[in-house]
Amino acid sequence: MPRPSPTPWSTYAPSSLVCPKREVKRFTDLSTDETSDLWVTAKEVGVRLEQYHKASSLTFAIQDGPQAGQTVPHVHIHVIPRKKGDFENNDEIYDAIDVKEKELKEKLDLDVERKDRTMEEMSHEANEYRALFS
Amino acid sequence: MPRPSPTPWSTYAPSSLVCPKREVKRFTDLSTDETSDLWVTAKEVGVRLEQYHKASSLTFAIQDGPQAGQTVPHVHIHVIPRKKGDFENNDEIYDAIDVKEKELKEKLDLDVERKDRTMEEMSHEANEYRALFS
Repeated sequence: MPRPSPTPWSTYAPSSLVCPKREVKRFTDLSTDETSDLWVTAKEVGVRLEQYHKASSLTFAIQDGPQAGQTVPHVHIHVIPRKKGDFENNDEIYDAIDVKEKELKEKLDLDVERKDRTMEEMSHEANEYRALFS
Repeated sequence: MPRPSPTPWSTYAPSSLVCPKREVKRFTDLSTDETSDLWVTAKEVGVRLEQYHKASSLTFAIQDGPQAGQTVPHVHIHVIPRKKGDFENNDEIYDAIDVKEKELKEKLDLDVERKDRTMEEMSHEANEYRALFS
């Protein structure tokens, strides 16, 4: 995202990931300071994304460990702006989280061929989001 | 929970809720200190629950705002110990979160008749969990 409208919101779910610099597998491995920094940052990211996407709620989730759906052993928070009627059932947002987990896994697995978004798409998104935090 | 075995894990999902003392609707309304306290506490709760339930992963989620599935306007974190094969599909855990949201709403709505767990069940659970933090 952003994708050309009128792509329905629910088909791309503008999920962002927030992770600590130190590479630890489990959320529960983080120190108190790291836990605070991570969540204060995620909250700030959430506020900006909700405003930017003209949303009215946020989903925050950590899939902490493989049995919770974690695909990549570096703790990360999913932050997703939500709108009324964005998904037919609220739970479908978590399918979108699983798609994101799979993408992340593929991105880090150099043996797997995948279709990246274009540089133009990614550059546009990065510029838009950068402006939110400048 | 605890419920008599052999009730399958997936039918009761031992979800716990962690909330700040101050009653604010949105996670994004919390101060930096409150955000830190809330998540440091949730992490600690997660560590103990995972161990107690002999689980191997944790799901953490905030449904922040009505469009994210929040039913009660007091921010709360769902903390759920996870085990291999606890749900057929990982996403089913979020159905369990929605059940918990509905229960919470009903518990706070005095006009609605609901079947509470027995005092004995609740007392047993409270005692078991209290011991984890003593």
